[in-house]
Amino acid sequence: MIDSVKKFLIGKSLKTEQLKSEKFNVFWGLPILSSDAISSVAYAGQEILYILVPAVGFMAFTDMIHAVLMVILLLFILVFSYRQVIDCYPKGGGAYIVAQDNLGVTPSLVAAAALCIDYILTVAVSISAGTDAITSALPSLLPYNVIICVVLIILMTIGNLRGISESAKTFAIPPYLFIGIMIIMIVVGFVKYNIMGIHPKPIYRIPSYGNAISLLVFLKAFAAGCTALTGVEAVSNGIPSFKEPSQKNAKIVLLLLGCVALVLFGGMSYISTIYKATYNPDITVIAQVAKQIFGVGFMFYIVQGFTALILIMAANTSYNGFPLLLSIIAKDGYVPRQFSKRGSRLSYSNGIMFLSLTAIILLLYFKGNNHSLLPLYAVGVFVSFTLAQTGMVLKWLRNKNGAWRHKALINGIGGTLSCITTIVLAVTKFQEGAWIVCILIPALVFTMWRVKMHYNIVSTELKLDLAQKPKHIDHSTQKNYMIIPIDSLNKSFLKSYNYAETFTEDIIVFHVSVDEKATEKLLHSWEEYGMEIPIVVKKSPYRSLIRPLVKFIESEEFVVMPEDTITVVMPQLVVKKWWQNILHNQTSLFIKSNLLKRRNIALTTLPYIINE
Amino acid sequence: MIDSVKKFLIGKSLKTEQLKSEKFNVFWGLPILSSDAISSVAYAGQEILYILVPAVGFMAFTDMIHAVLMVILLLFILVFSYRQVIDCYPKGGGAYIVAQDNLGVTPSLVAAAALCIDYILTVAVSISAGTDAITSALPSLLPYNVIICVVLIILMTIGNLRGISESAKTFAIPPYLFIGIMIIMIVVGFVKYNIMGIHPKPIYRIPSYGNAISLLVFLKAFAAGCTALTGVEAVSNGIPSFKEPSQKNAKIVLLLLGCVALVLFGGMSYISTIYKATYNPDITVIAQVAKQIFGVGFMFYIVQGFTALILIMAANTSYNGFPLLLSIIAKDGYVPRQFSKRGSRLSYSNGIMFLSLTAIILLLYFKGNNHSLLPLYAVGVFVSFTLAQTGMVLKWLRNKNGAWRHKALINGIGGTLSCITTIVLAVTKFQEGAWIVCILIPALVFTMWRVKMHYNIVSTELKLDLAQKPKHIDHSTQKNYMIIPIDSLNKSFLKSYNYAETFTEDIIVFHVSVDEKATEKLLHSWEEYGMEIPIVVKKSPYRSLIRPLVKFIESEEFVVMPEDTITVVMPQLVVKKWWQNILHNQTSLFIKSNLLKRRNIALTTLPYIINE
Repeated sequence: MIDSVKKFLIGKSLKTEQLKSEKFNVFWGLPILSSDAISSVAYAGQEILYILVPAVGFMAFTDMIHAVLMVILLLFILVFSYRQVIDCYPKGGGAYIVAQDNLGVTPSLVAAAALCIDYILTVAVSISAGTDAITSALPSLLPYNVIICVVLIILMTIGNLRGISESAKTFAIPPYLFIGIMIIMIVVGFVKYNIMGIHPKPIYRIPSYGNAISLLVFLKAFAAGCTALTGVEAVSNGIPSFKEPSQKNAKIVLLLLGCVALVLFGGMSYISTIYKATYNPDITVIAQVAKQIFGVGFMFYIVQGFTALILIMAANTSYNGFPLLLSIIAKDGYVPRQFSKRGSRLSYSNGIMFLSLTAIILLLYFKGNNHSLLPLYAVGVFVSFTLAQTGMVLKWLRNKNGAWRHKALINGIGGTLSCITTIVLAVTKFQEGAWIVCILIPALVFTMWRVKMHYNIVSTELKLDLAQKPKHIDHSTQKNYMIIPIDSLNKSFLKSYNYAETFTEDIIVFHVSVDEKATEKLLHSWEEYGMEIPIVVKKSPYRSLIRPLVKFIESEEFVVMPEDTITVVMPQLVVKKWWQNILHNQTSLFIKSNLLKRRNIALTTLPYIINE
Repeated sequence: MIDSVKKFLIGKSLKTEQLKSEKFNVFWGLPILSSDAISSVAYAGQEILYILVPAVGFMAFTDMIHAVLMVILLLFILVFSYRQVIDCYPKGGGAYIVAQDNLGVTPSLVAAAALCIDYILTVAVSISAGTDAITSALPSLLPYNVIICVVLIILMTIGNLRGISESAKTFAIPPYLFIGIMIIMIVVGFVKYNIMGIHPKPIYRIPSYGNAISLLVFLKAFAAGCTALTGVEAVSNGIPSFKEPSQKNAKIVLLLLGCVALVLFGGMSYISTIYKATYNPDITVIAQVAKQIFGVGFMFYIVQGFTALILIMAANTSYNGFPLLLSIIAKDGYVPRQFSKRGSRLSYSNGIMFLSLTAIILLLYFKGNNHSLLPLYAVGVFVSFTLAQTGMVLKWLRNKNGAWRHKALINGIGGTLSCITTIVLAVTKFQEGAWIVCILIPALVFTMWRVKMHYNIVSTELKLDLAQKPKHIDHSTQKNYMIIPIDSLNKSFLKSYNYAETFTEDIIVFHVSVDEKATEKLLHSWEEYGMEIPIVVKKSPYRSLIRPLVKFIESEEFVVMPEDTITVVMPQLVVKKWWQNILHNQTSLFIKSNLLKRRNIALTTLPYIINE
């Protein structure tokens, strides 16, 4: 049953050879790789206003422009820094790879932890913002925002398990639609206000005081705006997806990404300023502006729809990036190996499900509230920026080829500013949630390090010296004991007995007596059946089924030489329906899992199929 | 680690011989077996007011007295009916046993389902009412009511897993304390109002209209009051816990229970009437009355404390009744057998944990709201009353000994009234939640019936004809194949190989190729190692590790005679810490669980212990 549900939801298995990836040119690559960065227009601006409006009143709108300009400046510095990463890592260079290559293990693990956290947050943040876009248009859905978030994630999970990246080109359309509608809104808004002189009343009251801004408040506003800068790394990770010349194409896309962000983020901030939008938990800034420019009608719903759509796309970018990153880390042995295996549809299904699960937990914990999630966001990204750029600087200093001084300077500026921004983000957002990330990153680094250590120990222990040949077995002296636990004399016992008889003469039938009456009944039927060997009966005063057996094996009553083998043979009922397993095999499962902790006892399970 | 936590929480294992039970006389038996019935004073009265006050205004208080009198009348009829059950079932007679004995399988399953539901509801209802008693006294705890409920259940779970019934006599004190404080409150309230003439203002306004009551509203009020009648069966179940003459003692206790309920329920209703208390979600009726009679002081907190305490006791009665009932049903084969096994502390630990889990789910779903839970309550109890009494009537009609006409009449009246009450409860509370019970009872009956059917089939299939002797094995012709899957050449493979070598010469080393490079590497080291037998390599285009193996076994390439045995030998890494299991054995676990679905393939697991 589970199999058929699985097949219905995610489709038939695919062959490994069917693994192929489409290659993009600049036109298709831009929207696909930049939806994460572009979509942050939907929340970054309003977070700035959330900080500024209560603090400085109507001066917020002037200060907002300054903060946004600083964010865009930082973006362009990062764009130029990452263009150099693209030059050096033609196979794709994320912070994990750059740090591993230039800085060593621990920094690369820090980058890995930071990136993982931010991939998960990208899903949570984008989906909650997308839901906000939906509920801003349809306020009657407001009470169901958490449910909407979870349903969206489940749909994305199914889609990605199926492997939706095949149809990636259709994913290029929503970003263009969003870019288009945003530009239309910015232009119409500008014309209406500045040329036609239509000045609508702000929807919400803006405090009439105009305080001078303090440095801390400005830094907070800047930090809020920095959430717009996640997703830049996507392009340098995605080089292998570009058509030749892939590096050149990626660099163009990265530059274009900067320009699109400049236009949209700058334009939207300007428009929010002139239309005096402000933070409100029930209606987004974009929705407020769209209401004032277009009124509540077709265009308003189009704006909200396209915004929701690109935010869902943005969440989906994590479904490409996160499982891939995790599979790389898994191959290096820092996370469980299962993350490096492709599922039946060739997607990294374990990574996908892990991503969905953690994002859903975050959304449930924060009740789908975008505003509470954002303080956790961006810290991780800037940690990874810092490490990647520092790694690049070291690379130039080591190689010293070409215009290395010039290049080291660019990456140096990028790294220094990223580092400063990381500190600003961590400090200004610490209390609101960044502390969680500050604890999680070292905790994850420690865990990954422990996992690697364990894998190392296991592989050392298992390493076979080729000189060590199979043992020579002296069948005349070695004894092979087979112990068959018996509860009642039935066909499955007989099957075990027949099986054991084919291998050895040293069979021990063993009964753990918990209930005296049952034991008597068993012994009676045993006698009646007329087996030649006796049953070993051990009482179990504590009703444990495992201790008497272990005690017996260890006791002097049971004489074993070091070269002898001991095998416990247990039948297992095989039933047709999954729920019937609840009715059987519970004790034998328990015995198995506990017995295996003891060295040198082999455990043979014999299936006994029940036909209904 | 888990073991030591378990030992700390629930204590060391106990021997089966340590199983003993204290016997009570009437003085100790009354409070212990009646806390469920007595504690319902804390919510039944206020539910009546919840129905009546909005419907009939100040007339509510008159109508309440009528409804309560009807409930008490019904209680006495049930008391006399159940005294006859006690006469006939000296080993304890619950509805399940009486129905099984007299009515057949299906009615007994209906009774079982109904009782199980009501045991679970007793926990949920009593705990939420107990929490209400606490938050009424300490309103600052109101936002944490769900957490308080869950913590109380967890504490009770731990206590019952330890086996707190040993110290049952200490459990007799809270009911007496509650009875005492209630009688004091009723007397003081009566004296202040009627003799000293102190008429305090009602805390909440009562509507000034005084409508005539409709039949439907009265029936609803009566139905609300019937929640006071759960717990009557506890006495007839508990006969074996009484000192000799146990039946006589039980009958006395049952009668006394009726008298105590008459005094408390009747008295409290009268007092609520004169002090004009009414339903309020934040403060219980008892708390309102106690405030008016004693003021907010020592006595008020004592009333609230003792009320909370007896409600927790009442919940605890389910922890005695439910696991015991479930163990009886499990022995009959209608629920999984695990419920019939005693845990390490001799308590029916599976039943206890099941009870806690379902009660917690209910409390979370209904947000710990006593008022929303109550409509589900009592329907089940009255279904079981009806079945038990009907069974008794049939018993008298069959046996016709002694004063059977007289006795059949009493049980007949009890059965008829129970049946009518069941219908009244189901209809009047249907929309508010009784429908859940109306669906659940048949669903549970069906499930139990399916479980029994399955157990029957399995026992028929496993039944050994004593004439069927062990097979004769011809070692010269029979072949025993051992298949060893290999992923890489390491020590754990060598161990498997050595093991297989002791048993057979027909060893097949089998490799599933998912990654070509890994396969090449393996074949290379295999050659270098210089084993004489070749590796069978099968490609797996869909990356399944199980399908190629199964296909190979079924293929003509692999020639097996019917008498041959096939054993798959798999090593399993045994690690020290539980979390390390996440890092290993996942594929082998998967292979094992899937391979066992195939008949005649035995699976041997060889532990390989990793020393760190």
